[in-house]
Amino acid sequence: MRRSIGLFDFLKLDRRDTRTLNVQLFDAIRGAILDGTLPVGMPLPSSRNLAEDLQIARNTVTTAYEQLCVEGYLVSQQGSGTRVAELPKLQTIQAANYVVEEPSLRRIRLSRRGEGLCGSPRYLPRYEDRTFAAGLPALDLFPRALWARYLSRGARRTAIRRFDYSEVSGVPELKQSIADHLSTARGLRPDPEQIIVLNSAQAALDLLTRIVTDAGDTAWIEEPGYLGARGAFQGAGLSIRPIPVDDQGVEVPEALSIAPKLIYVTPSHHCPTGVMMSLERRLQLLETSRIHGALIIEDDYDSEFRYDGHPISTLWSLDQGRTVVYMGTFSKTMFPGLKLGYLVAPVELCASLTKALHHTGQSANKIVQLALAEFIAEGRFADHVRTMKKTYAARRSVFLDELQQCFGDLVSFTPTKTGMQQAVLLNSDISDVALSEAARSCGVTAPTLSRFFIGSQRKDGFFLGFASSNEDEIRAGMHKLSTVVKATGRND
Amino acid sequence: MRRSIGLFDFLKLDRRDTRTLNVQLFDAIRGAILDGTLPVGMPLPSSRNLAEDLQIARNTVTTAYEQLCVEGYLVSQQGSGTRVAELPKLQTIQAANYVVEEPSLRRIRLSRRGEGLCGSPRYLPRYEDRTFAAGLPALDLFPRALWARYLSRGARRTAIRRFDYSEVSGVPELKQSIADHLSTARGLRPDPEQIIVLNSAQAALDLLTRIVTDAGDTAWIEEPGYLGARGAFQGAGLSIRPIPVDDQGVEVPEALSIAPKLIYVTPSHHCPTGVMMSLERRLQLLETSRIHGALIIEDDYDSEFRYDGHPISTLWSLDQGRTVVYMGTFSKTMFPGLKLGYLVAPVELCASLTKALHHTGQSANKIVQLALAEFIAEGRFADHVRTMKKTYAARRSVFLDELQQCFGDLVSFTPTKTGMQQAVLLNSDISDVALSEAARSCGVTAPTLSRFFIGSQRKDGFFLGFASSNEDEIRAGMHKLSTVVKATGRND
Repeated sequence: MRRSIGLFDFLKLDRRDTRTLNVQLFDAIRGAILDGTLPVGMPLPSSRNLAEDLQIARNTVTTAYEQLCVEGYLVSQQGSGTRVAELPKLQTIQAANYVVEEPSLRRIRLSRRGEGLCGSPRYLPRYEDRTFAAGLPALDLFPRALWARYLSRGARRTAIRRFDYSEVSGVPELKQSIADHLSTARGLRPDPEQIIVLNSAQAALDLLTRIVTDAGDTAWIEEPGYLGARGAFQGAGLSIRPIPVDDQGVEVPEALSIAPKLIYVTPSHHCPTGVMMSLERRLQLLETSRIHGALIIEDDYDSEFRYDGHPISTLWSLDQGRTVVYMGTFSKTMFPGLKLGYLVAPVELCASLTKALHHTGQSANKIVQLALAEFIAEGRFADHVRTMKKTYAARRSVFLDELQQCFGDLVSFTPTKTGMQQAVLLNSDISDVALSEAARSCGVTAPTLSRFFIGSQRKDGFFLGFASSNEDEIRAGMHKLSTVVKATGRND
Repeated sequence: MRRSIGLFDFLKLDRRDTRTLNVQLFDAIRGAILDGTLPVGMPLPSSRNLAEDLQIARNTVTTAYEQLCVEGYLVSQQGSGTRVAELPKLQTIQAANYVVEEPSLRRIRLSRRGEGLCGSPRYLPRYEDRTFAAGLPALDLFPRALWARYLSRGARRTAIRRFDYSEVSGVPELKQSIADHLSTARGLRPDPEQIIVLNSAQAALDLLTRIVTDAGDTAWIEEPGYLGARGAFQGAGLSIRPIPVDDQGVEVPEALSIAPKLIYVTPSHHCPTGVMMSLERRLQLLETSRIHGALIIEDDYDSEFRYDGHPISTLWSLDQGRTVVYMGTFSKTMFPGLKLGYLVAPVELCASLTKALHHTGQSANKIVQLALAEFIAEGRFADHVRTMKKTYAARRSVFLDELQQCFGDLVSFTPTKTGMQQAVLLNSDISDVALSEAARSCGVTAPTLSRFFIGSQRKDGFFLGFASSNEDEIRAGMHKLSTVVKATGRND
């Protein structure tokens, strides 16, 4: 149904369009006014005539006309009908909307800060690549039907008043559950009020960084080190100093030219090498942070899964939370898409963190928080972690055997005692990036180790997860990967 | 059960303590080593002797000793028993942990950026204050049992692979549902790929601000204006220029000394006055933003609830999303604790926003997103919004009648045609802060209007919600509030 009606031949309505006819009419007339096709003061046909010409209901036309009047495109006066309203003459509107697209008008540039926020690499393991995806739990073993019941219960039973904007830093029930979990699993005994629940551990890093540093301040991260911390620090415009890690953990520098404001460490299980920080280094680090007034972030991302003896005590408990902020996540123990992480912060920082959260919007969904609080309080969380620990222990064992058998002296590694992944060094000069690409083309995921280095002393290797795929998948993957590495070695 | 055993009389175990006995023993010995009570090289009693002295199981002692060895506090040598290990001499550890608490060591200071993030006021309505709480939906009318079913279904049916770290900028189903909703309800026709789902509208403001501005850049906000935008801009270190709002919306300045990078507006329903921005002002604003390369944020927070005629078209559709980012929230249509907001961004910004989200951690829970996508797709969301619109219309009608009757010419107001709250100006010189405090002491919530002003031209009044309490509560509240205002007026 297309008709032309003289001057108004731009009015092409189409019944197959997803827009209603009056919206099509509105859009067409508005466009014609804005681009000057219909000049100021021009009278429009009466609604009756236009409806007849277009063979549509008169009501469709009056609805469009009314809306155009409401929005100021048309004026309707008793006696003189409906006319195009007086509009300011604006060059760019017509130019940009209807004639040419000038790139100079369109391009939105990132700020330097924006470039910093976007410019840092991040490694986020995907379930599609689950064999050797590093840091990904066994999603298929998560008790989703059980979790569905807790979510449903949370939605049905929560007092309705709590659906409002309150409890920005987390619901008290979850803070208590986290405190109880930390006490049992990690020997921390924080006051639940010290716990700040956020939308993710990454949000915790981002918020904490912004609140205690200014752009240009110095932050230490481990070298090699966690990409999420590097991203948060770079996003905050910090000067990042990579501190080398040896088999005792970070080598705390003795002489400092510039004091750090923030120090990020993974003492229980260094990311990516798996090293546990020695007591001596821990004490030195605390001493350094106290002398320089630096805040230490202790990221304890996966120490729930320890396969050999008790988990090591935290830096936080050595320090009693004076200059150490402890950070945890439910991405490993539950699943990443849950979007829940937390901080245990010095009491004097908690009010500020909560205030800042009002403006950064990193709070977590409250029904999910309440569901998790019950999941923990009723022992379901501990059950799941216990089951996963057994599963991961078995997978780790197969993984380490296969790694040894398939690679022999092509690689070096110290079996990790904790967590869900293993750092592996290549005993050759082949670039891990090249190997990883070769592996990918053979259908194997092999996250590179070199990506975790900032400085020039980078080492090539792999950072292989063993938690998210079963023993057969691990065996098959290891054979494929070793074939790729051996083949690439020969080609070189 | 308390015993002293000579040199080891610091070992006081307490069965009523929540810690297990071996943890108590571990903590006590560790503390004594760190504070020098047990010096380097000092031999410890054999586990048998200590267990006898303390009247506890020997296994309890060996467990504690083993953990102390693992963590490096003790060394155990065949033949010479267990001794205190050599530790670095660190003054602050001992000072801070066990002797005195030096404030200089403890105080963690906020950075300037942190002060900026914490220093801005925010108004977040609470359900406890629901009569006249501004911007709060009728939580008691939310279909929570129905929502529970959608959540449960989301958890049970979602493909397990999606529990991973992927889909950082939102799940495609929700993007599609939001695009459909925007098309029907607001006449926007964005590509679903242009939609970025975040943890809240506040997170959207924060992220967008950080990505396109640097500290020191200029941003415009409406005067009076939304506190959330002010908070995000102040948190990002921007120079904030308040642009006065008259009955046509923001009075776009003609001569600019400093060009803005970012312009925040609420064109459909100005927060707090309720004014709709005229077409002329919209076109001027678009022109200004294009000439200066500024990005406009169009916050369309509650235009789903329009009581008079059609909702007005968006700035976004005038501009076709070139320099306008459209922002929406589910806090008003669903409930605030849901923690879901979204942006419709220019295509060229979407990849950067997604990258930045990897580092800011403002993504939303995926099961909640999938549940909401189905809730929208199956028409439940539209049903709920329709029902609430009727309810709010009835409440608004009672509210406006009561406001007129109880206050007469003590106040001025232009009845709002949209949303959930009404700005009311006081026709007297009484401070709204004083009145609001007086009202609070009489059990009535009356959010002040003056808080929305930055400049010196502030006006006193109230910003009263009418959506979250029923007609009787509104009537009772209005009588109480008018009594307070009249009484305070007389006293002056």
